[in-house]
Amino acid sequence: MPSPQSDALRARFLAMAARKAANPEMDLPTMRDMQEALHLETAEPEGVSYAEVSAGGVPALWCQPDGAVPDRVLLYLHGGGFVTNSMHSHRKLAAHVAKAAGVRALVLDYRLAPEHPFPAQLEDAVAAYRWLLAQGLRAEHIATAGDSAGGNLATSVVLKLREEGEPLPAAIVGFSPWYDLECLGKTLDTNAATDVLVQRAELEMLVPMFLGENGSPSDPLANPLRADPTGLPPMFLTAGDHETLQDDAERFAEQATAAGVDVTVEIAPGMQHIYPLMAGRAPEADAVIAGVAAWVRPKLGLG
Amino acid sequence: MPSPQSDALRARFLAMAARKAANPEMDLPTMRDMQEALHLETAEPEGVSYAEVSAGGVPALWCQPDGAVPDRVLLYLHGGGFVTNSMHSHRKLAAHVAKAAGVRALVLDYRLAPEHPFPAQLEDAVAAYRWLLAQGLRAEHIATAGDSAGGNLATSVVLKLREEGEPLPAAIVGFSPWYDLECLGKTLDTNAATDVLVQRAELEMLVPMFLGENGSPSDPLANPLRADPTGLPPMFLTAGDHETLQDDAERFAEQATAAGVDVTVEIAPGMQHIYPLMAGRAPEADAVIAGVAAWVRPKLGLG
Repeated sequence: MPSPQSDALRARFLAMAARKAANPEMDLPTMRDMQEALHLETAEPEGVSYAEVSAGGVPALWCQPDGAVPDRVLLYLHGGGFVTNSMHSHRKLAAHVAKAAGVRALVLDYRLAPEHPFPAQLEDAVAAYRWLLAQGLRAEHIATAGDSAGGNLATSVVLKLREEGEPLPAAIVGFSPWYDLECLGKTLDTNAATDVLVQRAELEMLVPMFLGENGSPSDPLANPLRADPTGLPPMFLTAGDHETLQDDAERFAEQATAAGVDVTVEIAPGMQHIYPLMAGRAPEADAVIAGVAAWVRPKLGLG
Repeated sequence: MPSPQSDALRARFLAMAARKAANPEMDLPTMRDMQEALHLETAEPEGVSYAEVSAGGVPALWCQPDGAVPDRVLLYLHGGGFVTNSMHSHRKLAAHVAKAAGVRALVLDYRLAPEHPFPAQLEDAVAAYRWLLAQGLRAEHIATAGDSAGGNLATSVVLKLREEGEPLPAAIVGFSPWYDLECLGKTLDTNAATDVLVQRAELEMLVPMFLGENGSPSDPLANPLRADPTGLPPMFLTAGDHETLQDDAERFAEQATAAGVDVTVEIAPGMQHIYPLMAGRAPEADAVIAGVAAWVRPKLGLG
């Protein structure tokens, strides 16, 4: 049964849905501001400091937990449908994960659609990864991580790096990743009644904003479900079983496992989209972050 | 001449004004979300960690710069017309000031009007101050600080503490304080053409939201210009000379000086409302924060 604390995220999603319903013409700046407040569901993690940096030309934020191993890094890609949110709204979530794992996180403020459609986000993530390597970090000491659209990017950036012959990171973490730009997942329908945030109509609005005029929802770099996952590093994927996007994590896990990738998938009972955002507030979020931390440390060569 | 960097705040205020003009029926949640984005004008200060705390029942955030003297504290009251903003939007500003002074800051998430009219904000600030004393902090090791409406609160809480016979803090810092709830200041008119954020119409909308049904704009605890400043601790007030509220700082300084209070007032050429918010980005903000830090340290018994 979901914890009482976890109801706060559900309540926020419902309040956001009510505001959108009351204002069907809501403009993009208002939408972005509203989405930015998602950070309120994450507690301020103690013992973490921050620094702004230009990561290969892309604005980013270092999250530096006290005692973190400096040469191990999570490259964190925030969610928000490729259209909203920022390194600020996801600073605390990334910092919780980094702190639990005892490493640093670099939260990327990649360019947003529709002003900057696909593949701008991917280009920014590649640039930041190359910048990390140029700082002397080793690929096998980097993991990519992200939530929702950022979970897609955390995966697609590795597909892109593979295409470009770059050394791949050691691991990929996806929280409620949104892979399925074709909206084919069966949980889009079977969980429509329990998911209070993500519905087919919104996804179908976001897809063309993300892809712009020239992109295709079956492009393997935009929709990793259409990619060949062979050779991807170990992956940790999680989603809630009240999510319409549950199927994205499960289908990708199935395809990647079949291709020989080491995939761990955790489906959390009663949880909504991006439930790890409740880090420091709800036990389900803290539990999955502890699980991710224990899972990722050996992948990064830590005991 | 204003620095090129300082134009970012002016540009943001203009963009906010344009959004309000385009949406004269803007609802309060949208207004609050928009105001919250003011944090973007402040750089992330390096070497500071954070912790959420309940300060006498009031949510608050500790800003803990590396190496800060732990028993010296700025009690920081954020601005936003008593109606908007939070400890989150002002976290970085408070942390910059605390870091420069080598002390901790406690940023208070006091209750907002109109849901909680005057004197709820004052009650919360008093509760947090008493909580600091209950933690073993000495009154003479605490300074209050705030911007705009928070500059009012940083002053009025001391007037309230005086009324209640509590030991007073060592100093008061006000960034563009908004004292004048009667809207009598001459710069409301003479700077109306240069201030791109604060105009009489907005103030006259905020005053009744803040005061509710029973408050009066000439209540000395709501409008410190109507209070007897005798016995207040040393004060540092700053405002920009492009501000409609320039007069609030200058008039209060004049009255308090006449009553024997040690007041430093700095009027910054070409600066807009709450220009210290540009900490880490614009030289004018960094300069005044350095000045505040050098001024407040001896007041707190630091060398």
